[in-house]
Amino acid sequence: MAVNLQAADAAQILAIDGTQVYVGQAGVKKAGRDDLTLVVLNAANSVGAVFTQNRFCAAPVQIAKQHLAADAGIRALVINTGNANAGTGQQGRDDALAVCRAVAEQVGCAPEQVLPFSTGVILEPLPVAKITAALPTVKPVHWSDAAAAIMTTDTVPKAASRTLYIDGHKVHFTGIAKGAGMIHPNMATMLGFVATDAAIAQPVLQQMVAEVAEVSFNAISVDGDTSTNDSFVVVATGKSDLPKISAVADTNYAAVKAVLADLALELAQAIVRDGEGATKFITVAVKNARSSEEARAVGYAIARSPLVKTAFYASDPNLGRILCAIGYAGIADLDVDALQVYLGDVLVAEHGGRAASYTEAAGQAVMAEAEITVTVDLHRGEAAAHIYTCDFSKEYVAINADYRS
Amino acid sequence: MAVNLQAADAAQILAIDGTQVYVGQAGVKKAGRDDLTLVVLNAANSVGAVFTQNRFCAAPVQIAKQHLAADAGIRALVINTGNANAGTGQQGRDDALAVCRAVAEQVGCAPEQVLPFSTGVILEPLPVAKITAALPTVKPVHWSDAAAAIMTTDTVPKAASRTLYIDGHKVHFTGIAKGAGMIHPNMATMLGFVATDAAIAQPVLQQMVAEVAEVSFNAISVDGDTSTNDSFVVVATGKSDLPKISAVADTNYAAVKAVLADLALELAQAIVRDGEGATKFITVAVKNARSSEEARAVGYAIARSPLVKTAFYASDPNLGRILCAIGYAGIADLDVDALQVYLGDVLVAEHGGRAASYTEAAGQAVMAEAEITVTVDLHRGEAAAHIYTCDFSKEYVAINADYRS
Repeated sequence: MAVNLQAADAAQILAIDGTQVYVGQAGVKKAGRDDLTLVVLNAANSVGAVFTQNRFCAAPVQIAKQHLAADAGIRALVINTGNANAGTGQQGRDDALAVCRAVAEQVGCAPEQVLPFSTGVILEPLPVAKITAALPTVKPVHWSDAAAAIMTTDTVPKAASRTLYIDGHKVHFTGIAKGAGMIHPNMATMLGFVATDAAIAQPVLQQMVAEVAEVSFNAISVDGDTSTNDSFVVVATGKSDLPKISAVADTNYAAVKAVLADLALELAQAIVRDGEGATKFITVAVKNARSSEEARAVGYAIARSPLVKTAFYASDPNLGRILCAIGYAGIADLDVDALQVYLGDVLVAEHGGRAASYTEAAGQAVMAEAEITVTVDLHRGEAAAHIYTCDFSKEYVAINADYRS
Repeated sequence: MAVNLQAADAAQILAIDGTQVYVGQAGVKKAGRDDLTLVVLNAANSVGAVFTQNRFCAAPVQIAKQHLAADAGIRALVINTGNANAGTGQQGRDDALAVCRAVAEQVGCAPEQVLPFSTGVILEPLPVAKITAALPTVKPVHWSDAAAAIMTTDTVPKAASRTLYIDGHKVHFTGIAKGAGMIHPNMATMLGFVATDAAIAQPVLQQMVAEVAEVSFNAISVDGDTSTNDSFVVVATGKSDLPKISAVADTNYAAVKAVLADLALELAQAIVRDGEGATKFITVAVKNARSSEEARAVGYAIARSPLVKTAFYASDPNLGRILCAIGYAGIADLDVDALQVYLGDVLVAEHGGRAASYTEAAGQAVMAEAEITVTVDLHRGEAAAHIYTCDFSKEYVAINADYRS
């Protein structure tokens, strides 16, 4: 079902100096399937991360935030699939810590130098014993194998790499991600991990990750539900000979951020392309807004509307639903007569209604495509935003209604 | 498909002194079907109304607001189905005014004493000539006939009446409503009209209508899409011998408001029961919130979640989805360990996870019902809210994806 999405060629996924990836089988998800991933990091790295804003954030998210705040340096990431350790209260935090302790003992660091991540069913206790028993059995693999090991209901593993050439230096980036809905049927989570061999001071990296998340993992919607476990983590190992980026004002900040953003966007879009029941990939481009918040609000109103999304599923150029969603996006002083809406390159609405030049045949031709861009020109400022979503199909309901039965 | 909803017995729908209802066939919706409703009002009435907040509000909504603001007294309501006159720009406003002029000529009043309402396809020009040609042919009927004449994709006409006995006086109320999604597949609108013979000063009635809307028509969600045409209008003809209510502080204000709210809630709930593809009627009760805004935010987060709604469709007691929706309702300082969630009378979640006493069998028994109440006790204040919604079925997608094909 995935829209124009194929597994990356493993040969194209770069190793990142300073990281070693391992996977194993803990039997949490199902017997005979890799469900445990361990990433061991060199000592001199820096880590930036953003997490779900959901108040019901999962136990591993709480522990990961604490360990980052402890500022002891991060030496390992541990990720299990099959169980999200969410909605599990104090026991869940104890369980996540127990996994960190086992990892710390194995790799020779302190427990607070380990970041735990979990994805899978929620409200079920984490099977800690299975995980700690499997840890000594994990085997060194490539990042592309880890992309497969962190999947839940994903149909395609998601991995990508980039190389940046700059002033005779090379910087490498590899990322993996999972998540086929913003939250799954009892399967929680979008997870994204990127490693680069760039050297970036921690506060600068944190700033970069926050900026990148805004235009990648925070610019997608499958069903509008914000998960309990969403995490996006970037590790910079500093093994590249590119001089260390010590400030946002450094000349190389923008170049490294641009490549990281491009990579993160590919991974985020892959999650949408693999969205539950998705048959179309839709970009909502909002321009000439007063602020980026305003542009994002309009983009998300369109991207979240079940009526808009079912119309895309039906390849129906249903302009009324798009206009209606713009109308309730919360811009109190919006002049609806001043804005323009395009489907692909076709002007479909202006002056508060259907454009005089619009023909149903032209709209229909755009809607028949598997990849569609809706552009909203608000004509009231200079800010812009891009939001990425998929259509809403009978299969989405089937997947989400039938999951536990 | 409607959930526990049947057409009212016409004999139970009361005439309201001071109102005369007519319906006719303009051929806007389809030949041979009543699609034009005219309500002629006595001179000494007062009118309160609330309208959609959507910035793409339809032409008749814009004209109705202008005519109410003109304060010349309202003598007629005219409602067509089959065409919403929305997304039609200046031509749409001219068309709505042309209908008002024709009604005014027929009933002997000024055009600004007429309120126009339209529901049906959007982005299509209103067929004014068909409507004005049919106006002289409308026939006097009962309110229950008007309930049928304003239907779009509704499967059941929605009408209800109440009688209030107070200090030896009688006050009568009759209401009709339409709308099977908050907005339809190209068919826009929730419309609600109530007439009462109570005498209520206009500013007091306006206040009462706003308060009543908050707990009835503004407390429902079918698909989260706010329509371009939504209107709720209450006419008080003053024909009852109950003394006129001239201030909110009047002793009879609360009693009249309570009956009006009860009637409006029945009509609003009827819209949800007749929701597109609905198989379950769901009440989300939020209590002990800090404010009613907070309670409504939590209620709507649950009521709008596609994941929660598909779980209800599947009769799946999927607590994780409910907890997750509470978590992203936007309460920054929410203590998730302090709240409790009930399905029916069954405590399902507390201390940040599943309740120790919960059994899947108990949850399953509640979910098998056609009417389900989810109660969220936030334990942080004294405010409450009730939000009403339906489940999200494969039929919803089918109705909304296939409508124009």
